[in-house]
Amino acid sequence: MARFDLVVKGGRVATAGDVVVCDVAVKDGRIARLGDDLNGADRIVDARGRLVLPGGIDTHCHIAEDGWMGFVPADDFASATRAAACGGTTTIVPFAHQQRGKPLRHAVDAYHARAEGKAIVDYAFHILMSDPSDQALGQELPALAADGYTSIKIYMTYEGLKLDDRQILNVLAAARRSGCMVMIHAENDACIHYLTAQLVDAGQTGLANFPLTAPHPVEREATHRAIALGEVVDVPILLVHVSSREAIEQIRWARAKGLSVHGETCPQYVTFTGADFERPGWEAAKMLCMPPPRDRASHDEIWTALAGGVLDVLSSDHSAYRMEGPGGKKHHGPEPHFHRVAPGMPGIETRMPLMFSAGVGQGRIGLSTFVAISAANPAKLYGLYPRKGTIAVGSDADLVLWDPDREVTITRSLLHDNSDYTPYEGTRVKGWPVMTFSRGDLVARDGEVLVQPGRGRFLPCARPLAAQA
Amino acid sequence: MARFDLVVKGGRVATAGDVVVCDVAVKDGRIARLGDDLNGADRIVDARGRLVLPGGIDTHCHIAEDGWMGFVPADDFASATRAAACGGTTTIVPFAHQQRGKPLRHAVDAYHARAEGKAIVDYAFHILMSDPSDQALGQELPALAADGYTSIKIYMTYEGLKLDDRQILNVLAAARRSGCMVMIHAENDACIHYLTAQLVDAGQTGLANFPLTAPHPVEREATHRAIALGEVVDVPILLVHVSSREAIEQIRWARAKGLSVHGETCPQYVTFTGADFERPGWEAAKMLCMPPPRDRASHDEIWTALAGGVLDVLSSDHSAYRMEGPGGKKHHGPEPHFHRVAPGMPGIETRMPLMFSAGVGQGRIGLSTFVAISAANPAKLYGLYPRKGTIAVGSDADLVLWDPDREVTITRSLLHDNSDYTPYEGTRVKGWPVMTFSRGDLVARDGEVLVQPGRGRFLPCARPLAAQA
Amino acid sequence: MARFDLVVKGGRVATAGDVVVCDVAVKDGRIARLGDDLNGADRIVDARGRLVLPGGIDTHCHIAEDGWMGFVPADDFASATRAAACGGTTTIVPFAHQQRGKPLRHAVDAYHARAEGKAIVDYAFHILMSDPSDQALGQELPALAADGYTSIKIYMTYEGLKLDDRQILNVLAAARRSGCMVMIHAENDACIHYLTAQLVDAGQTGLANFPLTAPHPVEREATHRAIALGEVVDVPILLVHVSSREAIEQIRWARAKGLSVHGETCPQYVTFTGADFERPGWEAAKMLCMPPPRDRASHDEIWTALAGGVLDVLSSDHSAYRMEGPGGKKHHGPEPHFHRVAPGMPGIETRMPLMFSAGVGQGRIGLSTFVAISAANPAKLYGLYPRKGTIAVGSDADLVLWDPDREVTITRSLLHDNSDYTPYEGTRVKGWPVMTFSRGDLVARDGEVLVQPGRGRFLPCARPLAAQA
Amino acid sequence: MARFDLVVKGGRVATAGDVVVCDVAVKDGRIARLGDDLNGADRIVDARGRLVLPGGIDTHCHIAEDGWMGFVPADDFASATRAAACGGTTTIVPFAHQQRGKPLRHAVDAYHARAEGKAIVDYAFHILMSDPSDQALGQELPALAADGYTSIKIYMTYEGLKLDDRQILNVLAAARRSGCMVMIHAENDACIHYLTAQLVDAGQTGLANFPLTAPHPVEREATHRAIALGEVVDVPILLVHVSSREAIEQIRWARAKGLSVHGETCPQYVTFTGADFERPGWEAAKMLCMPPPRDRASHDEIWTALAGGVLDVLSSDHSAYRMEGPGGKKHHGPEPHFHRVAPGMPGIETRMPLMFSAGVGQGRIGLSTFVAISAANPAKLYGLYPRKGTIAVGSDADLVLWDPDREVTITRSLLHDNSDYTPYEGTRVKGWPVMTFSRGDLVARDGEVLVQPGRGRFLPCARPLAAQA
Repeated sequence: MARFDLVVKGGRVATAGDVVVCDVAVKDGRIARLGDDLNGADRIVDARGRLVLPGGIDTHCHIAEDGWMGFVPADDFASATRAAACGGTTTIVPFAHQQRGKPLRHAVDAYHARAEGKAIVDYAFHILMSDPSDQALGQELPALAADGYTSIKIYMTYEGLKLDDRQILNVLAAARRSGCMVMIHAENDACIHYLTAQLVDAGQTGLANFPLTAPHPVEREATHRAIALGEVVDVPILLVHVSSREAIEQIRWARAKGLSVHGETCPQYVTFTGADFERPGWEAAKMLCMPPPRDRASHDEIWTALAGGVLDVLSSDHSAYRMEGPGGKKHHGPEPHFHRVAPGMPGIETRMPLMFSAGVGQGRIGLSTFVAISAANPAKLYGLYPRKGTIAVGSDADLVLWDPDREVTITRSLLHDNSDYTPYEGTRVKGWPVMTFSRGDLVARDGEVLVQPGRGRFLPCARPLAAQA
Repeated sequence: MARFDLVVKGGRVATAGDVVVCDVAVKDGRIARLGDDLNGADRIVDARGRLVLPGGIDTHCHIAEDGWMGFVPADDFASATRAAACGGTTTIVPFAHQQRGKPLRHAVDAYHARAEGKAIVDYAFHILMSDPSDQALGQELPALAADGYTSIKIYMTYEGLKLDDRQILNVLAAARRSGCMVMIHAENDACIHYLTAQLVDAGQTGLANFPLTAPHPVEREATHRAIALGEVVDVPILLVHVSSREAIEQIRWARAKGLSVHGETCPQYVTFTGADFERPGWEAAKMLCMPPPRDRASHDEIWTALAGGVLDVLSSDHSAYRMEGPGGKKHHGPEPHFHRVAPGMPGIETRMPLMFSAGVGQGRIGLSTFVAISAANPAKLYGLYPRKGTIAVGSDADLVLWDPDREVTITRSLLHDNSDYTPYEGTRVKGWPVMTFSRGDLVARDGEVLVQPGRGRFLPCARPLAAQA
Repeated sequence: MARFDLVVKGGRVATAGDVVVCDVAVKDGRIARLGDDLNGADRIVDARGRLVLPGGIDTHCHIAEDGWMGFVPADDFASATRAAACGGTTTIVPFAHQQRGKPLRHAVDAYHARAEGKAIVDYAFHILMSDPSDQALGQELPALAADGYTSIKIYMTYEGLKLDDRQILNVLAAARRSGCMVMIHAENDACIHYLTAQLVDAGQTGLANFPLTAPHPVEREATHRAIALGEVVDVPILLVHVSSREAIEQIRWARAKGLSVHGETCPQYVTFTGADFERPGWEAAKMLCMPPPRDRASHDEIWTALAGGVLDVLSSDHSAYRMEGPGGKKHHGPEPHFHRVAPGMPGIETRMPLMFSAGVGQGRIGLSTFVAISAANPAKLYGLYPRKGTIAVGSDADLVLWDPDREVTITRSLLHDNSDYTPYEGTRVKGWPVMTFSRGDLVARDGEVLVQPGRGRFLPCARPLAAQA
Repeated sequence: MARFDLVVKGGRVATAGDVVVCDVAVKDGRIARLGDDLNGADRIVDARGRLVLPGGIDTHCHIAEDGWMGFVPADDFASATRAAACGGTTTIVPFAHQQRGKPLRHAVDAYHARAEGKAIVDYAFHILMSDPSDQALGQELPALAADGYTSIKIYMTYEGLKLDDRQILNVLAAARRSGCMVMIHAENDACIHYLTAQLVDAGQTGLANFPLTAPHPVEREATHRAIALGEVVDVPILLVHVSSREAIEQIRWARAKGLSVHGETCPQYVTFTGADFERPGWEAAKMLCMPPPRDRASHDEIWTALAGGVLDVLSSDHSAYRMEGPGGKKHHGPEPHFHRVAPGMPGIETRMPLMFSAGVGQGRIGLSTFVAISAANPAKLYGLYPRKGTIAVGSDADLVLWDPDREVTITRSLLHDNSDYTPYEGTRVKGWPVMTFSRGDLVARDGEVLVQPGRGRFLPCARPLAAQA
């Protein structure tokens, strides 16, 4: 009788701290043993010449959210987790979106219902808080935190979502009391409206104008403000989808002051620039997102910040719409107008290959840093560690066998989300996930999904280890 | 028949650019001639051993404003300009305070009426804009700017005054169109409310807690935000009463980016610290103001910033209440509560002696810098130059004979405003104004006022020279 | 027959990446297995309630160096490694000091001879290069690097040691070719001489004057210069014993530019300040070292820099002299003169407890950061990883059982080096190493050394992983 | 009988502090009067529509220095001052170059002899100190300072000139004692040698490689070091020919710390970039100078720094060689090698028109800033104020009538130095000096020199007003 369910043998096992060759033995979905000569398993996987990485954790992805303005998000939990698994991601943390005037618990319940029976990998939820009432903060949040919802996403822009400074302070104070992490979308809403109105008044509504609606100071200001509010309340914060060198300058400055300020970025922010919005027709709609991708100097700065730990989380900000058809990006056509295109792009499956290739492959970040930003740090910052995010005894056996040498040209037909395009069409990467295990189950191999919807489980989150340097 | 009305002979004449010994001849209220041997005047003043400075310009003083919460400002235009003149200041620029829902013109007319027949030195008005309606910005402001009202004061805090970011952008855009300077009181309102509520809830309402309602990040954040909004609109701004090293850090940073960001400070911010709020009884009420005085490091930083031109305006922020009697600072007694004391202090008369003594006298700034911050820069930044702010041919003969060696202990009985105290009681200074001329008239000598209310004239302001480096 | 030599059971195993409870099994001096239920060993150690840390690596310690000016270092490899082991340190990297005019190989051979038969834990050598001749750099270094000497220490000050900029560039270029790490003692030599001469000329030779010989700009300038020279050559550098907020400011700035600049600090730089040099008599001689300990602001900055990864190595800079007797610190008495006291202090045994207590215990750094700076980073930066610096399959079984709750008052009689004092006399710490294993051998328990000199082995170093973020 | 020798009527008179329309009356070579209706003069000049500026002061120009390596400087005091006068410059401060081993006084005497009978405008001398012996610093400097030589130029690079840090400290300390200003050429000599050797070894000796010999860190490092040495000695310093954004970053940083650090730049550093060194043939030799011109970002930063007072002096660094003939730039031909071309270019005549046009004309700096950097600040920083550098009663009547509207295409044939080219050939500028007065004498008009060599006088310099903010 086999002692283990699975042994992965001879791979180069990488965590945020270590890179060593060893065997990994799995029992009952958890890592039971690491050793130099492990055997006795139902399944033996030969990982020689491969990397063995903790399954990726994508903590910024919009799944099965409600449509708006006629736009309809492309993915449900089935398609999104299929794509995640094929891309080497074994945990997702999408948002449970509170409707204004409604209890937080409604949101949580609603998104549980949407995930139920669909997910193929594990998931937790951030509370997307649009209405931080006394009831929500004083009554609901403590209970929800105890139930495993320990992160809150708030917005400084977007109608129906944006909170004012007093609301943000209240959220931060409540987060401090309940030990939650607050994720902040930092853009100055008034500036975006002011600049958009100027462009619209001038009839400058083509997609090429989109970056002009939210230039550097728009993100930088809100970043500084978010930092200051966190400083006043004395609570850690996490800035999501940091896109620009000027925002990074603020985060660096905060870190140098000793503040607990964390930062997330996404592949699109080291890939695209303002120039991409000058592409003809609807092409630019494919990478239109908020904040807008910037410039080469920002790309360099993001890599430096990732390498130095100033940015500590890599997410996809997956927010997929189809280009064509009802509810798609062209829905308000026939002409593309920058303010009538749904922002967002698919990215849950390409996140890890793109950043491994451009980062580890090009020598911009080390392998342990790649693991840190794609798995370990998110786990620690959102209370999933050590269950997720590492390869250690007792952790869930979420493992990715990564072929560092496989070269792949990204194209739509390879991908598993429900969108009808990828903004990375034609991009060539080196390094690709060849097997993805979730709690010891082989869920995807070479782009083939091997399990049924519903096997993914909800993960209640503990208090984040924000203070863990 | 005398050729000149007045010749000031043999003084050390200091401007923002030069310090030379020469004679100054005045005719019809203006400086007619500078020379090495001027004579032939009705009045010859021997200035040997004295400095001859441009009359001070105090561009931040609250005069004859409406009371609130039962507090009654102490000064009208008669008492305020008496104090100004005795302190070496020959031009004041108080605020014409717009009431919400009322036209700007009402405010301007109302304050003209309050000044009429009272002022003994010249005055202009900033528009204190509390309601930037389309009407105010689109219709009224262009006309008012043409009439000589070319500066706008806005607040980021205070009930009834504070503007939100979108309103600020609108004001900045209107200022850009009309060539006006926007002065900004930069403190984060939500943080002040949050921190105040925490203290009040904890019963910590003694004056010693006052600085805790608005610590460094509160001013720093709003300063950064104001800079960003000005950057988005591409218009110069001026931060008033900069108090802290952290706010200065932001201004420096903006300057290094090439932004046109100006900064004002006041004597209280290089004099008092948070420790002064621990004085017993009502003593701390005397120097309670917003933002709160800070710490020694901020004092040092303010001096460095003045010396280096990073802060370019010295004002008093004179806002005088009596301590005793109805409408006084103790009005809501018997116990002092930090949120029931009117913020503000008298300072219009002591502004120049305090800063000359601590600045020029202690070697922290040069004499030309003192003239620049107390007269020349305000004149340039608010459209009064070259009529005011310098000693040049054609300029108004607003002159102060300054005895650099006279030592004076500041005490209430020396002063001429209508308050019943000075926060600087007992402070010893070296350097004192001994004669003050306004348009060639000797208006004050050794603390004695020599003219009647009503001789002061309104000064229509031209477009500020914000771009003049 | 037992399968393992040793199993450490139930401890909280901490590495630079992970903190998890598991068992650690050792075979033939190496870590054979990590698991949740390991048994079958000759020796089972119950580690429940204890931390299990990688043995500390002290990469800056002066052992058995030649005397100078009559001073005689207190420690040989026996006493130093005894002290190291009792303090939780299982690897030391002292210096092989090249004499000017002599080959590097002579130095290496000489220090091997001094270590031979004495060390109880493992050791490697940095080449202390005082004479970077063409022969040394062009011929010897490549061969030495191949033999396992892959780090070079150079000095910017000290007679007989200091290199000029051209020599430093040559060293850096040679290090780049051979893949060596260059450690730099960064102080401006000319400034120290200038300031010292001024003090000596003024008869100000008491120990209280010592910090005046090397104030902030002395270290800051040399730090900036070292960074610039490394930038010109395009090679990583490591600044040793960083003591001041101004030096850290430079390192931060370099990191933000994306330069590979590493920094080391020591316990004395978060413990003592300039005020300690005002202690009476010879007391100040006990903590006299170069650069001098600074001020509270620098302490805070060092902790922030350690937490943020800006400083990445913790060493002792152990350089022990006795106070009394021939060759001791008082050797040039009877009166203490700051320039006639040997700089340096013992610290090899107290390094880890002091920093665990003040850092992890006080919440200034996380446990993984403590492991990173005390073991993992030094291993990576000096080519000892993964053999040393972590607890991973295949690594040497250098383990410390750490009792996080034990409170100890540091006093001379507890310590094992050959000095006759500790500068930390009377300091109370919480957290103490209770068992130290080197390659699976229990070498020290509760301050008792359990092995004989000579068991420690030389460690040839591989190419440092400076680029590993 | 005329009361004045000269009255300049109706011009727009600009100083560093003021810009006003008035008349300027001159008597005995000095400004006797400023007024609104001055008459009664031997000569009346109608300046309506013109600017009246203080004569320019060029405090960095190499005149009649010895040749070296076969190169022969093109200009003597006659040709240089002719060019200066025609370009609106009425005071020059070239260098009295000490030969190593020789007394300073020899240098001063020698350069006096070279100037004698030749100059047409006034001149002072900086001591170019190459040998700061005890004799030079302790004996000679105090006497020379008393005689009017109050500035010292030192080099951190160049064979035969460069001083090491200890020598620099000694110079700074001596300057502090004698009240002298120390000008520093800040480039790291060792880096230049290291990089040059690498290029030469690789056979990369074409002019396009020249900028690679001294990239940003070379100037930045030396700038930081110079600042630190000045800080240690507590004495003002002035960095000459600041060329790069990275050097400016250091100066800004020093200013923010409150250090008295001054900076000079030159037209070439806002005109040329590294790309100009790729011009074919010998073309790049025309603008080859040390430090090398940089990049557009540095140009922008220089303008921002000039506008903000971070750089306070504009000089030409005139160092003219002919291209052709013996001693010319091609002397070591036939092929151009970057290390065999004399660095330096002519610029004494084009300094003011180039910077007026690009600065004031393009709105990058104000008119008063132009006067400040071209005349007032140099006068103050080198002890010539108020005799020179302003238009004030008692100052020398050094005046330039400037036509702000005249457009000129710079070409060799317009210029008056002895070189055979201008690096600005073909550059179109707007704004040109039409009359230049030196002590009331019209010395040049529209490019025609109206006086004879020998009328220029030596100017003994007083103690610089470095502290005058």
